[in-house]
Order: sequence, then C-alpha cells, then structure tokens
Amino acid sequence: MEKINKEIIAERFQKIQQHICEALEKEDGIGKFKTDLWERLQGGGGATKVLANGKIIAKGGVAFSAVHGPTPEKILKKLSLEEADFFATGVSIVIHPINPMVPIIHMNIRYFEMSNGTYWFGGGIDLTPHFVDVEDASYFHKQLKAHCDAYDDSYYEKFKQWADDYFYIPHRKETRGIGGIFFDRLSANEKMPFPKLISFVEGLGYLFPKIYCHFMANNHKLPYGDQELKWQALRRGRYVEFNLVWDAGTKFGLDTNGRTESILMSMPPEANWVYNQTPEEGSEALKTLELLKKGINWIKD
Amino acid sequence: MEKINKEIIAERFQKIQQHICEALEKEDGIGKFKTDLWERLQGGGGATKVLANGKIIAKGGVAFSAVHGPTPEKILKKLSLEEADFFATGVSIVIHPINPMVPIIHMNIRYFEMSNGTYWFGGGIDLTPHFVDVEDASYFHKQLKAHCDAYDDSYYEKFKQWADDYFYIPHRKETRGIGGIFFDRLSANEKMPFPKLISFVEGLGYLFPKIYCHFMANNHKLPYGDQELKWQALRRGRYVEFNLVWDAGTKFGLDTNGRTESILMSMPPEANWVYNQTPEEGSEALKTLELLKKGINWIKD
Repeated sequence: MEKINKEIIAERFQKIQQHICEALEKEDGIGKFKTDLWERLQGGGGATKVLANGKIIAKGGVAFSAVHGPTPEKILKKLSLEEADFFATGVSIVIHPINPMVPIIHMNIRYFEMSNGTYWFGGGIDLTPHFVDVEDASYFHKQLKAHCDAYDDSYYEKFKQWADDYFYIPHRKETRGIGGIFFDRLSANEKMPFPKLISFVEGLGYLFPKIYCHFMANNHKLPYGDQELKWQALRRGRYVEFNLVWDAGTKFGLDTNGRTESILMSMPPEANWVYNQTPEEGSEALKTLELLKKGINWIKD
Repeated sequence: MEKINKEIIAERFQKIQQHICEALEKEDGIGKFKTDLWERLQGGGGATKVLANGKIIAKGGVAFSAVHGPTPEKILKKLSLEEADFFATGVSIVIHPINPMVPIIHMNIRYFEMSNGTYWFGGGIDLTPHFVDVEDASYFHKQLKAHCDAYDDSYYEKFKQWADDYFYIPHRKETRGIGGIFFDRLSANEKMPFPKLISFVEGLGYLFPKIYCHFMANNHKLPYGDQELKWQALRRGRYVEFNLVWDAGTKFGLDTNGRTESILMSMPPEANWVYNQTPEEGSEALKTLELLKKGINWIKD
C-alpha cells in the first residue's frame, strides 16, 4: 500500500509551514511570525502564523490546519459526496508587501480524505503584482512550469488555464493578477502513483519560499512614491473583492462557520476604494490593467 | 385605479435623490456631488452621484436607477417569478464620514414591477456607528418608529426585526450596526392603499436627510484621535465584509452583471484588517462590540 497515512501528511504539511515561515523571516530581516493555535470544536485545529509590520512584508499569513469529524452537510452537497467522516489538512499563504513593486502572492496546498476511502489533493499558487512586470511574470511561470514538467508534462498547461479561470474577477472583467497554477481533486493513478503525487504537492510548498524570496530580494529596493502607494491600495481593494465575493474557499469557509480570523488573514492591512477610478493614458497602472487577462503566455522562449 | 404609473414613480424617486444630495451638500458645506450618468444595454440606466473629500463626508454615494427589459433568468429563479418584462427603480445611499464619531448610514428605497401586473416596494435604512452612542441610537429608532407609526402601527416592530436579521454578519456573530428598518415585497391592500404605501416609502426618502444631517451637525465636531481613526478603519473593514459577503443586493448585482461601480459605491474610501484584533477591556470599542446584537430595544421611553 503506497498511500501515506493522513497524520503523516499533516505532519509533513506542518513542516512545510515551518520551512516557509523561516525562509520568509530570514529574507524579511525584521518581521517575525506570531503563532496563534486554535482548536475546532468538532475535531482538530490549526496554527495560524501571522507576520505584521516587517521590513518587506506589511502583512503575511501562513496557516496550517488539520481538521476532522463528520463531513458537514454543505460539503457533502457541494462536492456530491456520500455521508462519511472527513479529514482535511492544508497550508495556506497570502503575503501583502510594503513596497508596491513587490507582488502580492498566494499559495495553498491541501489534502482531503474520507472514511470511505475517497481522497484527493488540491492546491494553487498565483501572483498578483500591483504593477505587472513581464520579466517577473515570466520568471514566475517558468518556475511553475519546471516544477510541473518534472512530474507530468500535461500539468502546467492544464493547471495554468485552471488558474486563469479561477483567479478571475467577473464583475471587473479582469484576472486577479498574472495567474499561476490551480488544481483540485488529484488522486493517484498508474501514471502518477501516490508518492509521486504527494511529492508534486509538497514540492510546490517548498518551491514557494524560493519564488517569493526572489521577488522580496529583487523588488523591495525599487523606488516608489505616493502614486504607486495609491494604486497599491486600489489593487488591494480588488484583492478584497475577489476573496470576499468570488473565492470559493473563502466563501465556503465563512458560509460553513469556519474560523473567520484564519480565513480572513488573506485580507490586506489596508485597502482603498475610489469611485470610477481609471488610470491615465500611458501610465504603468493602465499597462497593468491591460495585462490582467486570461490566456496570456508569460513564458517567452 | 389608484396605482401610480411606473414612470411617475421613477420621477418621484429621482426628485428624492436630488433633495437628499442638496441637503447633504448644504450640511457638509464643502463637498459637492458629481453625477455619473449611465445606460443599461438591455434597457434603462441611472445617475450615480458621488461626493468625495467633503468637510464632513469622506465618501458618499446617492444612486438613482430605473431599468427595464426582459427579467433576467437569475431574478426569475431567485424570486420564483414567471417570465415577463420587468421595471425596477430605486434610490440607494451609503455615506462614510470623516470623523469616526459620525456614524456610517445606508438607505435604500425601491420599486419593482412586472408586465404581468406583479409589483412591490422594498427598502431599508440602517445606522452603523463606529462607536455606539445609546442616545444617538435612540434618536434614530424614534425617528423611524414615528414614521412607521404614521402608516401602520405594526410596521416598526416588524421591520426593525427584519433589519436586525438582515444587517447581520454571521461570520463575526455581530450586527452591522444598530439596525433600523428593512422591508420588502410590500404591495397595496385594503388597509394600505397604493397612495398610502408609496407615501410611506417616499416619506422614508425624505426623512433620510433630516436624520443624517442631525448626526452630521451634532457629531462632526466631537474630538477624536489616532485610536478612533484606527477603530474606524477596522469597522469599515467589517462594512466591506458585510456588503461583499452577505448583502443580498450587492451579491445579486455583482452576480447578474450589474453596474459594478454603482453597486460598489458603498465601499468605504479606506478599510483596514488586523489579524485577531480585540479591543481592550473597558474601551469604548469593546462597549460598541457588546452592543452589536440583535433584538436590542433602543427606544427608552
């Protein structure tokens, strides 16, 4: 039996959380994660780690949880599952930087298992630059493609399109950022045995700090002024709109009595709204808006 | 036939918008509403009036719209209606003040009619103080009760409870503010003939500036400092959470391809999120949290 025990998966996920926090703290140089332990009444709990007011990171959360119990009615219905107990563990990250030239980033890896044997992995990572830099976008997507290609050469294209469709704000007719990859309900099969599958998911977790520390190191010294800060505050408003209106995980969490503070650790420290704000012709902001589209091939060979 | 033609109702609503804007401008003393006219592809349009950076008002929107056409599939389904053309007109207001001692306010009056003869009025008004002042709350509810009582002495109690249930943030287990009144699907009957019903709805529109100018005049000179501003920014975050996650109108508008900027004119100019923020023992902020409950009788006789 190749499948790994759920408690071991949770332990490994928690190690990924630890690794990510250490790497981000080192790169930030000043900020420290504070740990908030919580328990779930119906079974399980988690550790939400939040860093506020760092040198580079304004507000970042790296959350781990492992919860279990009878599967809530709403989950059964939504996922068309038969009644059984469930176990779910995951690591979820959102980082809001101080400097508008550093992108916002999100990552999530998760494992879901039921007492009847059903199980799957899911996850995703996407980048939301306040100002889109095509080279940064290319670096980001190349890293993801290389990781995907090491496991299955159909993954990147498939998961990139899934991300384009998922991280989309219909009421703004714009993508949240430059996308990334998104996948769900991945179970092992002959081509992708369990150890390889979990390695793909864990590998994404370990890839995260490499990618984000690259942007922290390279972009946090880029100059910016009031104009860039104002634009950042508006883009953060869009981030709020996506997460509260469209993000399936957030909506579902809030709807099913999840732990509000952990779910909403993704909120920016501050967000602004200005009525009918449109960037000037020729501005960097307008160039960014024009790049918030689905289906862009960011990898220039 | 006592029923008033839909175009006349729309005209009257637009006059209410005009009246409210004039009264608010006068009380503010500096801010001016800018009008943004828009058209709806499928029929109708509106005028969104927004005031930014006034003396008392940080950001306020007073929107009028009158739209018509085939009833969208989603509306038919949601409201269990048979296929027919629809006409809808309304005035909708959200005001975010500069001084945290002045409350946020919202009001909405609306009329919906179908080509098959179905029609109804809906509306609501609620107050969201950053710091709850019991006397202010009492004044607010007394004004609403007096207005309701002039039409039907069962209205206030019924509509106040409806507001408590509607303006509620389940994931925070708190009300948005101190409530107000909310009503929907009101049609004329023997006890409440059409002219009386529309007078009740219009009267609420005309009551609005009286109520809010009272708070603008009395509260905008109250002292505040950094601590109050920080709390205001967090409360505005809660306002965002309610509107984007739970408000039926907002959700529905964004979901059915409504005009995003008009729908989201309710967003505050700025909102903050701090992880797991809890006010200090004995603070005014904590006292406010303790008053964000359903079912409080604010009217002390």
